Amino acid sequence: MSERPDDTPEGDTLETALDAGFDAPPEGQDEAEHDEVDAAVITALSEGDTEALKELVDGLHYADVADVVERLNEDKRTQFLTELGDCLPSEVWAELDEAVRETVFEDMEPAQIAAAVSELDSDDAVEIVEEMEEPDQKAVLEAMAPPDRRLIEQSLGYPDDSAGRLMQREIVTVPTNWTVGETIDYMRAAADGDEDILPTSFYDIFVVDPTHKPVGAIHLSHLLRSKRPIKVSEIMQTELKLIPVTMDQEDVAFLFRQRDLVSAPVVDEAQRLVGAITIDDVVDVIHEEHEEDMLAMAGVGEADLYDAAIDTTKARFRWLLVNLFTAILASLVIGLFETTLQQVVALAILMPIVASMGGNAGTQTLTVAVRALATRELTSTNAYRVIGKELLVGAINGVLFAVITGAIAWGWFQEPQIGLIIGMAMIVNMIVAGLAGASIPLLLDRAGVDPAIASSVFLTTVTDVVGFFAFLGLAAAFLL
Amino acid sequence: MSERPDDTPEGDTLETALDAGFDAPPEGQDEAEHDEVDAAVITALSEGDTEALKELVDGLHYADVADVVERLNEDKRTQFLTELGDCLPSEVWAELDEAVRETVFEDMEPAQIAAAVSELDSDDAVEIVEEMEEPDQKAVLEAMAPPDRRLIEQSLGYPDDSAGRLMQREIVTVPTNWTVGETIDYMRAAADGDEDILPTSFYDIFVVDPTHKPVGAIHLSHLLRSKRPIKVSEIMQTELKLIPVTMDQEDVAFLFRQRDLVSAPVVDEAQRLVGAITIDDVVDVIHEEHEEDMLAMAGVGEADLYDAAIDTTKARFRWLLVNLFTAILASLVIGLFETTLQQVVALAILMPIVASMGGNAGTQTLTVAVRALATRELTSTNAYRVIGKELLVGAINGVLFAVITGAIAWGWFQEPQIGLIIGMAMIVNMIVAGLAGASIPLLLDRAGVDPAIASSVFLTTVTDVVGFFAFLGLAAAFLL
Repeated sequence: MSERPDDTPEGDTLETALDAGFDAPPEGQDEAEHDEVDAAVITALSEGDTEALKELVDGLHYADVADVVERLNEDKRTQFLTELGDCLPSEVWAELDEAVRETVFEDMEPAQIAAAVSELDSDDAVEIVEEMEEPDQKAVLEAMAPPDRRLIEQSLGYPDDSAGRLMQREIVTVPTNWTVGETIDYMRAAADGDEDILPTSFYDIFVVDPTHKPVGAIHLSHLLRSKRPIKVSEIMQTELKLIPVTMDQEDVAFLFRQRDLVSAPVVDEAQRLVGAITIDDVVDVIHEEHEEDMLAMAGVGEADLYDAAIDTTKARFRWLLVNLFTAILASLVIGLFETTLQQVVALAILMPIVASMGGNAGTQTLTVAVRALATRELTSTNAYRVIGKELLVGAINGVLFAVITGAIAWGWFQEPQIGLIIGMAMIVNMIVAGLAGASIPLLLDRAGVDPAIASSVFLTTVTDVVGFFAFLGLAAAFLL
Repeated sequence: MSERPDDTPEGDTLETALDAGFDAPPEGQDEAEHDEVDAAVITALSEGDTEALKELVDGLHYADVADVVERLNEDKRTQFLTELGDCLPSEVWAELDEAVRETVFEDMEPAQIAAAVSELDSDDAVEIVEEMEEPDQKAVLEAMAPPDRRLIEQSLGYPDDSAGRLMQREIVTVPTNWTVGETIDYMRAAADGDEDILPTSFYDIFVVDPTHKPVGAIHLSHLLRSKRPIKVSEIMQTELKLIPVTMDQEDVAFLFRQRDLVSAPVVDEAQRLVGAITIDDVVDVIHEEHEEDMLAMAGVGEADLYDAAIDTTKARFRWLLVNLFTAILASLVIGLFETTLQQVVALAILMPIVASMGGNAGTQTLTVAVRALATRELTSTNAYRVIGKELLVGAINGVLFAVITGAIAWGWFQEPQIGLIIGMAMIVNMIVAGLAGASIPLLLDRAGVDPAIASSVFLTTVTDVVGFFAFLGLAAAFLL
């Protein structure tokens, strides 16, 4: 089991005990386990039993400790962290939700934070420091030892969300003329000497030329099955996918998934090897990007769950304000038909159906398109085909729902014309919904705007306006 | 670079050339590269130049070939596959989108499919076979060689989406009394003899007791830095997170992410080691689960992009039908206030605003809750806190938008009472939206229903009904 051993808490005896019961359905058991641990923590806190608390934390994986901290309310959280003090494994900080970490850091001295961060791997440390506000960041960096500080400042020099921020600096490199035996002896000697030379856990050895440019990579499982006299240059893989240090993390994640990579070399502008990105960091990126897309489509910012109510309110207010204006736009369209509505009140009763069906049909298409753009399955090659298909799907479902809704409206108001009108409006709006749902994200993507963020506003504006206009307009033309 | 070497196409020379240009912004370059490759393929196809086609495919990674196949239209796709024939690397089949693969398989003989599948890794082969229809599956299995067939049938014996389907059967195990030297010698000998004994790529060696129960694991990077006489039992990690063969893949993915795992041992009911799951398979699961959640929330099935228009229409019809009934429910509520609407047509014009704002505010909360349930950040410990916060956020935003909307309505219709009424309705609906958005997914989750699938319908029904009822009801009570 490849846990990154640097992150493994020592003396992890209770965990094994907890793990023993895994034959039960895992989800239910997880929930029960959570509740049990939470209850024990809360008891220990209210009894002020620091020893029991320390024992509890010792028995947990650091990720589980972070989860406990997240689930506690603010008072209990402060008490928990104060009582544990230095006994808290520093890896917990890296696992903690950003919003939670922020509130906890507010009560801590820069020196305390610096001490916790210094104990972490460089990439985890950077992840914490990069998210701090400018003045806090400066204070914490100043409180750190110069070598640790320099490493973090170097990483912060790379753009946000770039490969440079993700990569691990510690890599194993060997020259092209070495043999398998020399490589293994080098690692054994390094492990005997200063432990810091080797990364704690790695998957590949990189073969570099004299200018430190990567020329090959050897997976450890291949190194291990090769005999000592064999040259590394004979067994290395030479088709390397080099990652430029400035590559966006989203592109890095795409590449890892596309090529089934587990680790990949990162190079600077001069093509020199500067680090390596490993899959565990990429998994976090994949989760982050997905969360961003999903929340963006609903008009919510990141890390929303643990944000203070006031921050959440502010973040959501913006999106709701945009929505208010589009809703007013739809109302203005309805207002155009004031006289018609006054004469046939049935129209007011039925009109939300047309808009709602268009909105839902459009959202279906939109979600597929946004997702396909994110996974790069939707490109200029198949864009027209996809739009064409969505038009067809919209038309077929439009006709089907025109018949159903038309029949219902006719029966309800005993007026065949109303059924006919709502049916026609339905067809129009469903076709428009398919067209808009497929083309809005494509157009936004081409304009360089993230389609996940802005697509829904445009779409519902279109389907509301068209829905109300088609239905009331047809009614004004044919009913009166 | 750890590409799984079993999947690496041989003689991959052109790829390196294509990769050379990565200094350009990767996204734009990717797009351009796609277009270029697509154009070259289409030219080769229309000229019937099979040699050029083969050369093109040789220069691409198998994942890129699959992408090309997906982007081609159906005629060109058939031509492409026919012309290439056996020259198509079998890994392309594993990478292909399920819907595309299905249409392509329709034109192929079971024996052809069996031949392609047999060349794949057992886990990839299972992934393809498990998705086939019953009779096709049987025909393909019968056309396979007995040993390959037995392996696949064994895997198919495990539940859908279970660890047993995901795991790799080939693992390296050593007894507890072996030394590092013996382990390395064993691997070298195995590599020299029958290549099939060792998995092509692996990260951990598992230490087992005489009953084949796992007692420890050693990451290769730790084995490599240890001296030959050291016993494996001295350097192995003993806190293993064992995965039962029946564990759901979603739980497996959660565990990998939570514990930063790269590979983990899978055990049967008797706790015997039967295989290992590696991170590359888990990354695919993570993507799948993300996609499912996102598409489910919009009422769309999986693999929708490449489905035939008629299948897409059918799949979406169901969701739209449910939506139609909830829209009619909302219309029935409006119908209750027919007389009120007849007297004050302004109400018909303004009423969609209240419903729309409630729907959007509710969707924001809903998305956060669904996401937090999926990542297991939302549990019974913090459920009430989250609901309380959402109520508060709803109330604050409700008041803010009550003021804005009330002022606009007042100004528009020159009627202070209408402003007051829409404001009050807005507050009511936004609070209800917060409450419903947070509690609907929680209730569904507790009832064992996937909150991603069913939450939105319930939510919009609530916000529409409450929105129209509050606005028109208040108007009926205070305006007339």
